[in-house]
Amino acid sequence: MRIALDAMGGDDAPGPIVEGAIQAVRADPAMTVVLVGDQERIRCELEKYQDAPRDRLPVVHASEVIGMDEKPVEAIRRKRDNSISRSWGLMSSGDVGAVVSAGSTGAMVASGLLNAKMYLPGVRRPAIAAVWPSRRGPVALLDVGANMAPKPEDLYQYGVMGSVYAQYALGIDEPTVGLLNVGSEDDKGNELVREARALFLKSPLASRFVGNVEGRDLYDGHARVVVCEGFTGNVLLKAGEGAVEFLFGELRTEMAKYLTLLPPEFAGRLGGGLEGLKARYEYKEFGGGPLLGIRGACIICHGSSDARAIKNALRVAAIMGEERIGQEIEKGLAAIAPAS
Amino acid sequence: MRIALDAMGGDDAPGPIVEGAIQAVRADPAMTVVLVGDQERIRCELEKYQDAPRDRLPVVHASEVIGMDEKPVEAIRRKRDNSISRSWGLMSSGDVGAVVSAGSTGAMVASGLLNAKMYLPGVRRPAIAAVWPSRRGPVALLDVGANMAPKPEDLYQYGVMGSVYAQYALGIDEPTVGLLNVGSEDDKGNELVREARALFLKSPLASRFVGNVEGRDLYDGHARVVVCEGFTGNVLLKAGEGAVEFLFGELRTEMAKYLTLLPPEFAGRLGGGLEGLKARYEYKEFGGGPLLGIRGACIICHGSSDARAIKNALRVAAIMGEERIGQEIEKGLAAIAPAS
Repeated sequence: MRIALDAMGGDDAPGPIVEGAIQAVRADPAMTVVLVGDQERIRCELEKYQDAPRDRLPVVHASEVIGMDEKPVEAIRRKRDNSISRSWGLMSSGDVGAVVSAGSTGAMVASGLLNAKMYLPGVRRPAIAAVWPSRRGPVALLDVGANMAPKPEDLYQYGVMGSVYAQYALGIDEPTVGLLNVGSEDDKGNELVREARALFLKSPLASRFVGNVEGRDLYDGHARVVVCEGFTGNVLLKAGEGAVEFLFGELRTEMAKYLTLLPPEFAGRLGGGLEGLKARYEYKEFGGGPLLGIRGACIICHGSSDARAIKNALRVAAIMGEERIGQEIEKGLAAIAPAS
Repeated sequence: MRIALDAMGGDDAPGPIVEGAIQAVRADPAMTVVLVGDQERIRCELEKYQDAPRDRLPVVHASEVIGMDEKPVEAIRRKRDNSISRSWGLMSSGDVGAVVSAGSTGAMVASGLLNAKMYLPGVRRPAIAAVWPSRRGPVALLDVGANMAPKPEDLYQYGVMGSVYAQYALGIDEPTVGLLNVGSEDDKGNELVREARALFLKSPLASRFVGNVEGRDLYDGHARVVVCEGFTGNVLLKAGEGAVEFLFGELRTEMAKYLTLLPPEFAGRLGGGLEGLKARYEYKEFGGGPLLGIRGACIICHGSSDARAIKNALRVAAIMGEERIGQEIEKGLAAIAPAS
């Protein structure tokens, strides 16, 4: 798999981005990562790693970078030679099968959404999926921000696309699908979710559809794919990440009182155990969220991604960029047309 | 303050409910709690506490109870003599200044929403407020489920009502107000939040309005009142509670590996410290969420409320039931009419 990586996107780019690319191509001999961005700066980074497989790390120059605070659509139009648009251009022309960036989420999504010819056949609106932790393992939550005003049919399509993502990227066979709602009863929620519910019930997904999922239930993992509209999904995802940071921060303060009382050996082990636990629930482990419903793969990473996060994102991109993934989504959407 | 307490509402009612009432009247000599429900069962509970101030714990009989899974509006109509409707009846007739229940949330809210004559002058739609933990202390989040299809004007009113709640119940003077959104930029989100934002900016709240608040920012407490529509708020609140349960559960498993290695004295202190930390972020500390915008106070408690949660809810009810709170909300809403 050949993947375009926006080397300039991310809080500390290009350092950790290039490092992540090197780790990824070392781990996967079939992967080539095209580093897109300021060629001088990228080459400086590459030179730090004498034994990097340079033949699988080509560089494509892009002279501009879209800042995190710029308005995406305006910035894309003004900065023609930006690293995100260049990366999408490589996918659009068939040179790569996936794009990855830790830069402006808005610009990454807008590049995909503005380019309808990149949509897979049958897809109404692409969606961003995220991984949510649960007692039964990872849950695919979507949409977390691509579409602020979806129709019931969109939510249904999210169920189809999320199932394919859960199966191929998260390794969950025949994943259960749930609808995020404010209660477990049938008639709960707003018009959008009530209509979406009806679509699921008469669709080929009906046998895997577990009905409404409340905020608390997300952590149970009873549904391994949970669909919602992009506004709620985005707020929820960020609050979930905030909860991990907040609670572990409070925990660290609380533990500090006790750790000084312990023999250093125990204190070290305990501290290490907690850090390991925190790492398990951080976004870095999952390497960014994919924009689903497009030809090829697009993985959107956190601005604060380190080399580990980029490496994981490239791994997921390689999976999601495979042709059969797109075919699975197409097939799933064609099988149904539940909206009458 | 005279408060009606649904003695039959809650997973283990009436035991912990009656116990909470006794604790509350002991703590506040000016409080009378009218215990509403099956008089035989309530009296049995009261008899366990020989020294309870029985003169401030009158009983009003109600022969029926609305179950947690019953459809609220149907159940209210079918079970005329249920403890929730009886409690609201006492407030409607002026006998009490507040109602508290750990029973069916839907029935508590429906009783309030169906009774428009209980709305404060100027209130378009009541909202449920919840307390969200942050690094700067409690944040008032609303609406968490009263209204699934609010207008921008409703969100603005939530800001006014939430400010009064934050000031009187949470002790925050001149609280900052934020709008839950998917990004910090002005034009982010959907039509609802963009229009609500415009209302805030030209209102008397403008000086305290801090703009958009993302899911992650909730924990920063930069805004001490955060408004959102009821669907997102409900999902978010339950996910936040789920996060505390989930992360502390994982933590307990992780810690168990280390605690056995420690001298029992240390293990006990550490375990106790963690339980204390968890308790700080549990809903029980805040005693339920109020339905704001009505004459008098209505506090909705968790089904799993214990005596501590009920005691705290009664304390908040006594504050929120004061006449000046209603007057403050009325004044706030009258001062503005920002919708042209």
